[in-house]
Amino acid sequence: MMLKSALLLVRCAKKHVWDQVRFSSQALSQLSSEKYNVTRKDFATLQSTDVNFFKSVLSDDRVLTDENDVLPFNIDWLKNCRGQSKMVLKPKTTREVSQILSYCNKRRLAICPQGGNTGVVGASVPVFDEIILNMGLMNKIISLDDISGALVCETGCILEVLDKHVQEHGLIMPLDLGAKGSCHIGGNINTNAGGQRLIRYGNLHGSLLGIEAVKADGTVIDCLRSLKKDNTGYHLKHLFVGSEGTLGIVTKLAIHCPVLPKAVTVGFFGLENFDNVLKLFKSAKSSLGEILSAYEMMDNESIRGTLRNMKLTSPIPEYPFYVLMETHGSDADHDTEKVNRFLSKEMDTGLILNGTVATEPGKIQAIWKIRESIPAACMMDGYVFCYDVSLPLANYYQLVPMLRERLGSNASVIGFGHIGDGNIHINVTISDFDKEVLGVLEPFIFEEVSKLQGSVSAEHGIGFRKPQYIHYSKDRSALGLMRDLKTLMDPNGILNPYKVLPDDV
Amino acid sequence: MMLKSALLLVRCAKKHVWDQVRFSSQALSQLSSEKYNVTRKDFATLQSTDVNFFKSVLSDDRVLTDENDVLPFNIDWLKNCRGQSKMVLKPKTTREVSQILSYCNKRRLAICPQGGNTGVVGASVPVFDEIILNMGLMNKIISLDDISGALVCETGCILEVLDKHVQEHGLIMPLDLGAKGSCHIGGNINTNAGGQRLIRYGNLHGSLLGIEAVKADGTVIDCLRSLKKDNTGYHLKHLFVGSEGTLGIVTKLAIHCPVLPKAVTVGFFGLENFDNVLKLFKSAKSSLGEILSAYEMMDNESIRGTLRNMKLTSPIPEYPFYVLMETHGSDADHDTEKVNRFLSKEMDTGLILNGTVATEPGKIQAIWKIRESIPAACMMDGYVFCYDVSLPLANYYQLVPMLRERLGSNASVIGFGHIGDGNIHINVTISDFDKEVLGVLEPFIFEEVSKLQGSVSAEHGIGFRKPQYIHYSKDRSALGLMRDLKTLMDPNGILNPYKVLPDDV
Repeated sequence: MMLKSALLLVRCAKKHVWDQVRFSSQALSQLSSEKYNVTRKDFATLQSTDVNFFKSVLSDDRVLTDENDVLPFNIDWLKNCRGQSKMVLKPKTTREVSQILSYCNKRRLAICPQGGNTGVVGASVPVFDEIILNMGLMNKIISLDDISGALVCETGCILEVLDKHVQEHGLIMPLDLGAKGSCHIGGNINTNAGGQRLIRYGNLHGSLLGIEAVKADGTVIDCLRSLKKDNTGYHLKHLFVGSEGTLGIVTKLAIHCPVLPKAVTVGFFGLENFDNVLKLFKSAKSSLGEILSAYEMMDNESIRGTLRNMKLTSPIPEYPFYVLMETHGSDADHDTEKVNRFLSKEMDTGLILNGTVATEPGKIQAIWKIRESIPAACMMDGYVFCYDVSLPLANYYQLVPMLRERLGSNASVIGFGHIGDGNIHINVTISDFDKEVLGVLEPFIFEEVSKLQGSVSAEHGIGFRKPQYIHYSKDRSALGLMRDLKTLMDPNGILNPYKVLPDDV
Repeated sequence: MMLKSALLLVRCAKKHVWDQVRFSSQALSQLSSEKYNVTRKDFATLQSTDVNFFKSVLSDDRVLTDENDVLPFNIDWLKNCRGQSKMVLKPKTTREVSQILSYCNKRRLAICPQGGNTGVVGASVPVFDEIILNMGLMNKIISLDDISGALVCETGCILEVLDKHVQEHGLIMPLDLGAKGSCHIGGNINTNAGGQRLIRYGNLHGSLLGIEAVKADGTVIDCLRSLKKDNTGYHLKHLFVGSEGTLGIVTKLAIHCPVLPKAVTVGFFGLENFDNVLKLFKSAKSSLGEILSAYEMMDNESIRGTLRNMKLTSPIPEYPFYVLMETHGSDADHDTEKVNRFLSKEMDTGLILNGTVATEPGKIQAIWKIRESIPAACMMDGYVFCYDVSLPLANYYQLVPMLRERLGSNASVIGFGHIGDGNIHINVTISDFDKEVLGVLEPFIFEEVSKLQGSVSAEHGIGFRKPQYIHYSKDRSALGLMRDLKTLMDPNGILNPYKVLPDDV
């Protein structure tokens, strides 16, 4: 019971840090269309007859048209993007979604689907006057099979709400994110959200059991099975994973929930260099195998700035590199024994220079807080360019020293992330926004990632902000097939326009 | 070391049983087109100029046209299906595959892609004169990253060969099948192969990191990344998982390999009834969580016939139901302690009436042999109708007593399978093939599966044998989308015609 509470406490701590970031800037941002010089596509504009139609489908209170009511839905939480939508629709049923899409498709009215609006690439807010289809009221938990672990729910369920629900039945959600207090499970599916524990519980393509989605023309695609094995024809549900609302609107889903761990252990270690971070990862995988649930790395600069700005204390002295390692297991004694044996061995080999291990909720929370506070701490030093890339492990940290050399002493460059799945976050902080620095960074960073066969967007997606960089990770043939799929699924292009697909494919 | 050998021995034992099945019938089967009354579609027929073109692309020895050489490639291993192809092509490179497809697409020559030809629904042999594209020579292992676990290889690599290779680097393949000695990894991807250890290592959608595939028109789609997180645009690789060669030809792939377990434990238990099988599964998931790697159930009739026909001895007396449970872990002492505690508890509660636990290779092998021999044992009693369905766990065993009542004493009905992923195999044995019995079984069994929201093909796919039943698991809208995808990817329909898609969608 105490360990279950530990898990909850850790998660609450993350949410707290997230909120600090979320509300760190209050200024109303420039319109996306002006800021990024985008031209409106040839969609119809909203007429009063359209509004009347939507009011006939939904109750009046679920059709927002007052400018003040609509404004918050037009802005992303980073306040980087601002759209000009005139209307928010809040469907409660698949049938309503189908009626809305069918109508919009015929009228060529563009739509911006919106979940918890916690994304960081501007996918969930409109660019021009796209109708906002907010899925927040489709938030029913439909069923939970506590033997198979299959949860069936609507798209607008909040991840943390689902997690609490399944924990009461001895299960956990297969993914965990800083934004879990706000993000929707449907948004997670649409962005193929990753998070910290992917090395233990796998990705959403593996966890998703079934889906119900509505095509642009209103057709409901019913693949809402909750079976783990179903090889009857094409595996259509994967079309909707990571396509950011451009191929259809997810309305319901079935997902596999693993068993709630009875024991949680967190270690925080100091290391000599990045090579040792990799060597220690290999050793941890081998020694801890089935209980390893997170393996996060942070460079000295990440931790030093975070401790200073957030007024936190590290449990260990300063080292060139740090590792936060977590285990989830079914037996506390066994897990402690495994972790201690691993620790003792790797302190002998010298891979771990110093370290602490926690099994108590408070201590676990304090360690996770250091790791989770890094992004917020950066924002206190000035303007931050954030990069979220995947790289082969051998090249994982390579870009950080490269950028430091390129930028010199005017910028602070830090690297931290999920070694376990090759995902590094690189934050470049300067005192104020500077177009020249941007020019030094981009497209250089994407070119380097591309040379190393990495991904220019590991977990944040493409959205509105990155279509011009997608070609660094997808070749012409793949982009061509993406375009063909988009044309097939949404021939009038009404679903989330200006997003994901570059104009020139 | 001893435990690693145990794992290999278990696998060899499985292959042995598989071979018994594979070569159990030597008679040349009727032509599929006649047996199943299929009409040839309007494809071009092979001309000598075509053969000359293919010889210009491949070396002469990789273009088989002699009738005797081609015959074995025309027949599936169950000898249920026989095609009439006049030519087998054996490409060695992606470029050759691309040239072949581009040519065939222009000439409207149909193609049947073929891996290890171990499928059971006739997907990998032609129906008429489709050109057989055998992928067996594309069998190079390209790279293995033993830190990230990413294996990159060509499509024609044999699963067991890959498994041996990665075991030398402390890893295992994420799937294990009886056919592993013959089946190709590309075939596994094309059929979304499941196997016994899906509950531990997840499905192929989760394990597959990247793919290179050739579209019907010869375009090479390069998504061959080996990153665990890559959210740049649509997740195209999933189009090729489980589409049985009808949307493109997989040429290379990257797959994630988990760490080789240091300890393997197998338990074999006798239980009172099926409810207890489910209760014990829930308890095993909770107690053993991270180390549970297989949970197989078998009814009394499955085991009784197998022991008799295969002259095997059970380690425990006769019970109404049996469970084979396996653990993969990183610490033998811990695993044994967990298993013993679980055993002791569930023998006290009475869920387990009797049981044995093995950690020695020989004993592990003997237990797995009983489970793996069931299909071969059935075939020794007469004609077998095999069904492979997924059902919600609450209804998992329901069809077996239902069919027994429906068929009476003339038929033997047995149920066994992978509880962990809801996949039950139901074998109905009668002395000789009888159309009347077939009429009693089908479509009844598929109707019942459909009512229970199950899948009419859990892991065997649709292939040539089941398109007429696909509507029991996929509704009209899903079938319509499948048809649209097929038309998009292969407008001339040259890739594996007569398979997967029913004619009437």
